[in-house]
Amino acid sequence: MSLLLVAKNRDFTSLKKALLEKDPNVDVEIWPRVENKERVQFAVCWNHPKHVLDSYPNLRAVSSLGAGVNHLLNDEDLSADVNICRLITSSLKDQMAEYIMNAITNFRLHTITYADQRKIAKWEPQSSIPKKYAAIGIMGMGEMGSDVATLLLQQGYIVNSWSRSKKDLQGLQSFAGNEELDDFLGQTKILVNLLPLTDETEGILDLEVFKKLQKPGYLINVGRGSHLVEEDLIYALDTNHLEGACLDVFETEPLPENHPFWNRENIMITPHIAAITPAKEAAEVIIENYKRALSGMDLLYEVDRDKGY
Amino acid sequence: MSLLLVAKNRDFTSLKKALLEKDPNVDVEIWPRVENKERVQFAVCWNHPKHVLDSYPNLRAVSSLGAGVNHLLNDEDLSADVNICRLITSSLKDQMAEYIMNAITNFRLHTITYADQRKIAKWEPQSSIPKKYAAIGIMGMGEMGSDVATLLLQQGYIVNSWSRSKKDLQGLQSFAGNEELDDFLGQTKILVNLLPLTDETEGILDLEVFKKLQKPGYLINVGRGSHLVEEDLIYALDTNHLEGACLDVFETEPLPENHPFWNRENIMITPHIAAITPAKEAAEVIIENYKRALSGMDLLYEVDRDKGY
Ligand SMILES: NC(=O)c1ccc[n+]([C@@H]2O[C@H](COP(=O)([O-])OP(=O)(O)OC[C@H]3O[C@@H](n4cnc5c(N)ncnc54)[C@H](OP(=O)(O)O)[C@@H]3O)[C@@H](O)[C@H]2O)c1
Ligand SMILES: NC(=O)c1ccc[n+]([C@@H]2O[C@H](COP(=O)([O-])OP(=O)(O)OC[C@H]3O[C@@H](n4cnc5c(N)ncnc54)[C@H](OP(=O)(O)O)[C@@H]3O)[C@@H](O)[C@H]2O)c1
Repeated sequence: MSLLLVAKNRDFTSLKKALLEKDPNVDVEIWPRVENKERVQFAVCWNHPKHVLDSYPNLRAVSSLGAGVNHLLNDEDLSADVNICRLITSSLKDQMAEYIMNAITNFRLHTITYADQRKIAKWEPQSSIPKKYAAIGIMGMGEMGSDVATLLLQQGYIVNSWSRSKKDLQGLQSFAGNEELDDFLGQTKILVNLLPLTDETEGILDLEVFKKLQKPGYLINVGRGSHLVEEDLIYALDTNHLEGACLDVFETEPLPENHPFWNRENIMITPHIAAITPAKEAAEVIIENYKRALSGMDLLYEVDRDKGY
Repeated sequence: MSLLLVAKNRDFTSLKKALLEKDPNVDVEIWPRVENKERVQFAVCWNHPKHVLDSYPNLRAVSSLGAGVNHLLNDEDLSADVNICRLITSSLKDQMAEYIMNAITNFRLHTITYADQRKIAKWEPQSSIPKKYAAIGIMGMGEMGSDVATLLLQQGYIVNSWSRSKKDLQGLQSFAGNEELDDFLGQTKILVNLLPLTDETEGILDLEVFKKLQKPGYLINVGRGSHLVEEDLIYALDTNHLEGACLDVFETEPLPENHPFWNRENIMITPHIAAITPAKEAAEVIIENYKRALSGMDLLYEVDRDKGY
């Protein structure tokens, strides 16, 4: 029995070390130099190349190395009886909550404007936006979204959320389903996208949505690049439907050098770093799910293939 | 009886409006066009010019328009029987706590580096600094410092403080007096200055202090510009005793265009905006202290002239 790690251009040294520290008896293989394909029963993948996973006849389950699983669900080589799970850790949720809080505060206090002003020796106070005029709307109230909402509520923000099913959290105004999307947007100034990427959510961040926000709105996208219609963002900024955006994920990553998002004053860009699974915590969840897969038990953070997340 | 507002280059329209909304019977005068100098019994000042306050024979008390009072204590024209007070509001403390939290998070998550990278289309992930390696040291545990400490502790930071007297706050490690300064610095990576400017604290942020921090340290100065020995900061950055600084206050404000702090990658600069008293809340405290002064009662937030803060 062995556990396989698959990714393009990724150094697995620290993850392998952490896995062996957690359980010295686990046999870890690293793609593409796999010694025995028959023995592989569990794989951990991040943006794996096509036609890699179909050469392991005894594969039982595949885990994403992160919270997103769209790269696995889109893999046609993965037969329906292979279970799919993902990697959620408390550190991942803490990092995400902190990233979002930072992005919101930077917007309200004009931190990025001040960072830019210092480059040209410009001393110009800006009026900050009080919390009461900065209602937050969180799209997606899963593992990430619900922790983000809790932190924001605790810090005195007005928080709305949108998901498929209604949520019950003290102080939160929860909206559910497509029928309630417009209401949700109308009560939101700062839109935070934490949806999974599925057929229903692809391209959801478009001009129609931006127009319905409390004007001018602000967008924070940490879901996936394909949630956003990139040219709609530019148009919404140019027409003042949005006054800015903070983006961590992009259609193409790394963001190409000639992309129009770079070097626009009102777009903040981070290189897909909002929440990164630390090796030690990742190893704990992976080993647990590896053992569960071998013994046929339910996996932690298993993905519902029908729902697509 | 009248209440006088004094400042250079400041528009008092909204403060005057707020004062009259709070109490329509109060007679408000605005320097330099004062109708009746004899009637002035209370003055509110911000960086007032020299030899202004000696022309009001019936002045009983002077309030700073902010939390700092060094500009009043340094005014030799102010006779010893004029009481001095300052303006503290809950909004001022909230803003300060939020500013400090933002500065710390920006440092730990490399937000300003990402803001700069986006200007040159550079996609380069940085490793963020976990909270456990980012022990905070707050110098000055007064109105501002204690609220900052409370928020940081609540968010899971290691927090040390330094003041004249010991403080008792759950989770806080409190150091007091010059004897304990070195211990305090040795347990601190991120140094936050919230001391008042006095003879003892002027120039306290110097190379000796930076060298004693957990290396490399980080400085956040929101106290006063004269707390910092500016050339020592440059030297400490160049010699890696410090890896960066976030500054809101400066020896000369606005910071001169040719100042070496501008356009240094590892110095974040904001134009003295960390905490600004909102007119409505300011008016409440001012009117209350005006009435107290007229009737000879103790003032709110009265300054101890001997201590100097
Ligand atoms: N940038 C980064 O570094 C980073 C790090 C981690 C995660 N992420 C991304 O963050 C996103 C969220 O991850 P997660 O683990 O929190 O997701 P999750 O636990 O699967 O939660 C998904 C949430 O979205 C809601 N949802 C799904 N489809 C919907 C639809 N069609 N309409 C309305 N609501 C819908 C779900 O509603 P129900 O609750 O009703 O089912 C649920 O609340 C993912 O896109 C992930 O890739 C990014
Ligand atoms: N940048 C901005 O926008 C902004 C806004 C507001 C305030 N500020 C500045 O923030 C600073 C703090 O204001 P505050 O209202 O919190 O001050 P405060 O209430 O007067 O508190 C002063 C604190 O400093 C301590 N202290 C004074 N002298 C000391 C010394 N020689 N050694 C050790 N500790 C000493 C005091 O110790 P004890 O408790 O033992 O007396 C006290 O804890 C001031 O410099 C103010 O100007 C800046």
